[in-house]
Amino acid sequence: MKIIIVGASGTIGKKVTEALRGENEIITAGSKSGDIQVDISSTESIEAFYKQTGNFDALISVTGNAYFGPLKTMTIKDFDIGIQSKVRGQVNLVLIGQHYINAKGSFTLTSGILSDDPILLGVNPAAVNGAINAFTKSAAIELENGVRINAISAGVVEDAPGYFSYFPGHIPVTMDRVTNAYYKSVFGALTGQVIQVW
Amino acid sequence: MKIIIVGASGTIGKKVTEALRGENEIITAGSKSGDIQVDISSTESIEAFYKQTGNFDALISVTGNAYFGPLKTMTIKDFDIGIQSKVRGQVNLVLIGQHYINAKGSFTLTSGILSDDPILLGVNPAAVNGAINAFTKSAAIELENGVRINAISAGVVEDAPGYFSYFPGHIPVTMDRVTNAYYKSVFGALTGQVIQVW
Repeated sequence: MKIIIVGASGTIGKKVTEALRGENEIITAGSKSGDIQVDISSTESIEAFYKQTGNFDALISVTGNAYFGPLKTMTIKDFDIGIQSKVRGQVNLVLIGQHYINAKGSFTLTSGILSDDPILLGVNPAAVNGAINAFTKSAAIELENGVRINAISAGVVEDAPGYFSYFPGHIPVTMDRVTNAYYKSVFGALTGQVIQVW
Repeated sequence: MKIIIVGASGTIGKKVTEALRGENEIITAGSKSGDIQVDISSTESIEAFYKQTGNFDALISVTGNAYFGPLKTMTIKDFDIGIQSKVRGQVNLVLIGQHYINAKGSFTLTSGILSDDPILLGVNPAAVNGAINAFTKSAAIELENGVRINAISAGVVEDAPGYFSYFPGHIPVTMDRVTNAYYKSVFGALTGQVIQVW
């Protein structure tokens, strides 16, 4: 299976890439690292990216930033950080990628726990995750040729201890559980699902 | 109670405005109609708007567009329609409005059923509604001075028969049920809730 992993050098992306290597043909991608570079905020960059990768069987997106900060001082420019990157970037990977994906292929996007279980300072990622989860549910009923789409919504992960203090009472999830969710999305038959890992 | 209704001339806005008139001081607003005009895509316009309304007790937003159309031909520009208007517009009404709202005031935003129960052609409003719902849940835990926030998520409404054929099997909701949800958000004590009307 030919699998593209966008954000392969990130905390989760590294582990997902390790877990999927072996029998699969993996293309790693990132804004500055990986086999191929792609700027997910740019339609032209994504178009050029897929022309370079060619047709593929699975796209895993473990990329996208959001703004952490207090609501009280938040401006729409702060809020735009997550909208531009984690929402529009991931959505555009699907909008353009649908024209390059093989029949029965799959898209796996990344959302996160904060839309369902919010924390202080997390308004922007919460909204962003809500958009990705709903996009996933809705896109699943329109994708053709058996193409599937799921979103992985993980809690704070054990490899990101710098975040733990912002998530009081949250139990960090093991990297194995997180990578298994991505594996399940790619090799299973689910579609339109938000796979929760928390 | 001093209540601002943005989108007061729309299908839902009209009925909500009628239902709240009487003992309350109502300020209606819209892009081209109402007591005061506001362009919710513009931070400057929203700032000027609140300077004109002055402090208030409740803001009801029943405004914001989204793109209806097939995923297969959708571009990020199409997707941006809902992001710019229904997401960023409503969020910015809260980000700026939090500095003008009275203690124990409330924000009531509008999402919709499509994030939970998608239809064909509805990917953009689905994602948009998901963002608004999650924003609402998350913002509620940061708003200060007892200020509340809720989102109303209605199904297709009986006053919009032009949409019925796009919602096969959906039972149109009565305008009374919809307006009651807005009333409940403003005069009740709920916060951080997505009030479903379907």
